[in-house]
Amino acid sequence: MIVSIIGLGLIGGSVGKRLREVGFADQILGVDLSDENAQKAVQLGLVDEAVAYQQAVSVSDLIILAIPVDGMSKLLPSLLSQISDQTTVMDLGSTKEQICLAVQGHPNRKNFVAAHPIAGTENSGPEAAFSTLFEGKTGIICDAEESQVSSYELAKSCLDQLGMHVIEMGSKSHDLHIAYVSHISHISSFVLGQTVLEIEKNEANIFNLAGSGFASTVRLAKSSPQMWAPIFKQNKKHISTALGAYIDNLATFKALLDQGEEDAMIACMDNANEIRRVLNGIESKKKNDNHIKEIV
Amino acid sequence: MIVSIIGLGLIGGSVGKRLREVGFADQILGVDLSDENAQKAVQLGLVDEAVAYQQAVSVSDLIILAIPVDGMSKLLPSLLSQISDQTTVMDLGSTKEQICLAVQGHPNRKNFVAAHPIAGTENSGPEAAFSTLFEGKTGIICDAEESQVSSYELAKSCLDQLGMHVIEMGSKSHDLHIAYVSHISHISSFVLGQTVLEIEKNEANIFNLAGSGFASTVRLAKSSPQMWAPIFKQNKKHISTALGAYIDNLATFKALLDQGEEDAMIACMDNANEIRRVLNGIESKKKNDNHIKEIV
Repeated sequence: MIVSIIGLGLIGGSVGKRLREVGFADQILGVDLSDENAQKAVQLGLVDEAVAYQQAVSVSDLIILAIPVDGMSKLLPSLLSQISDQTTVMDLGSTKEQICLAVQGHPNRKNFVAAHPIAGTENSGPEAAFSTLFEGKTGIICDAEESQVSSYELAKSCLDQLGMHVIEMGSKSHDLHIAYVSHISHISSFVLGQTVLEIEKNEANIFNLAGSGFASTVRLAKSSPQMWAPIFKQNKKHISTALGAYIDNLATFKALLDQGEEDAMIACMDNANEIRRVLNGIESKKKNDNHIKEIV
Repeated sequence: MIVSIIGLGLIGGSVGKRLREVGFADQILGVDLSDENAQKAVQLGLVDEAVAYQQAVSVSDLIILAIPVDGMSKLLPSLLSQISDQTTVMDLGSTKEQICLAVQGHPNRKNFVAAHPIAGTENSGPEAAFSTLFEGKTGIICDAEESQVSSYELAKSCLDQLGMHVIEMGSKSHDLHIAYVSHISHISSFVLGQTVLEIEKNEANIFNLAGSGFASTVRLAKSSPQMWAPIFKQNKKHISTALGAYIDNLATFKALLDQGEEDAMIACMDNANEIRRVLNGIESKKKNDNHIKEIV
């Protein structure tokens, strides 16, 4: 089997590295608009060989797309028109509804599998790739009923080999929920980074005073704008709703702060503490002990 | 030398554990309003012995306060009135201006050192304590000129032994800058956690779809409300300004999103990317390569 990966950044490069390690295919080919990236990917052992896009399309059993989501929507219809009936195409984009709409009704829609691996870091490019990026993470296949069984099974076995736990969702539902648990976090972080940089003209203060909490909260502000702007655009409706709710809640918290409503602030934070239980998958909320508040 | 730690949570417990390990004192005593916490601290080896507050005050050469900041402001004037002239008191609170104001003009102000170790985790209580919490982090001593040399030197050597890099600042300046690089991050995170929990009634979606990016951004939402509410209250003025700027920037970003202004969104995110350079302390911004945007 020949697998081609289109886009050799963090995601595509990490897929190639892992698939090579586990021997998923006879050959892993790589395609990138940047010759420099393509050569780096070969040097770093992410793919066996860098080839031209048309060559990849004509020889591959599985073509994996790991490019920005606006590129996916533009590329997929023509790509599906060029492939043989035995070829499967899988995308790894962070939005799914518009990508699925772009290929709706296409004669080769059945050859396409819409996937989203919930994995990534704030770093970009082939140098950022590593083979365990997907290990233990969730991989989502959307609108699975639109894919033919053979293509679905090939795509799923690929995600399995990446170490992912695979679940299925509708593409619309995916975009709604991912707006809340991924996309809005990125905006929250980008804008926090921007705000602190605007106000703290003296960077030495940030450098000296920033602790691990700040670093954690603004980590995503290091992410690639070129990758994220198309995601925000494609999932605009849901992100706008989520962002509106976030801004409203921040404004409410600010009002409580300004009015000195300490108990109400604590109630908000108590609610937010629930996230610990959800993220840990623990059944019952373990209240933090209320330590010494005053000794007089 | 006898050292007492008042408040045996994450911070106080971690101080005790480290000071015991490095042999900083002949004896490390611990005080906590909760007998359960005090006993746990002894069992966990955070302190040599749990004692009553009055006993700690009468026998200690160095008294370290690690309780919520409202408790500090209330406790400090009476504590300074009770100590001998040879005793030094150091607080480890996350706000400094009101704490310093609370002891301004006190006859024993010179025995007090106002400190803030920029270290912590989202966990609370003696079980969360670990001896390397402060290693390599910044410790701030505020209004150092108000402390007598012997007290300053004892407090500094304690922070040194915790593994901290010690710098000095005015208490007002501290509170202004820490609002931006610490306090606002916590609010951003608390409110993000709250917002996602409100909207995602089906927690399975959060559980399945949340990636490491979300976990990183909401990590601080797990923090103790009882500890943070008094901090927000004491640093209300600066936090309110910072939060207002953050909300305004989020509203601007939302408007760009709603209007489809992709280039302007990218410009915002490019600015935010600068945080990578600042946090890494790297001189020149290393632009992320602009990967494949479209292949058609």
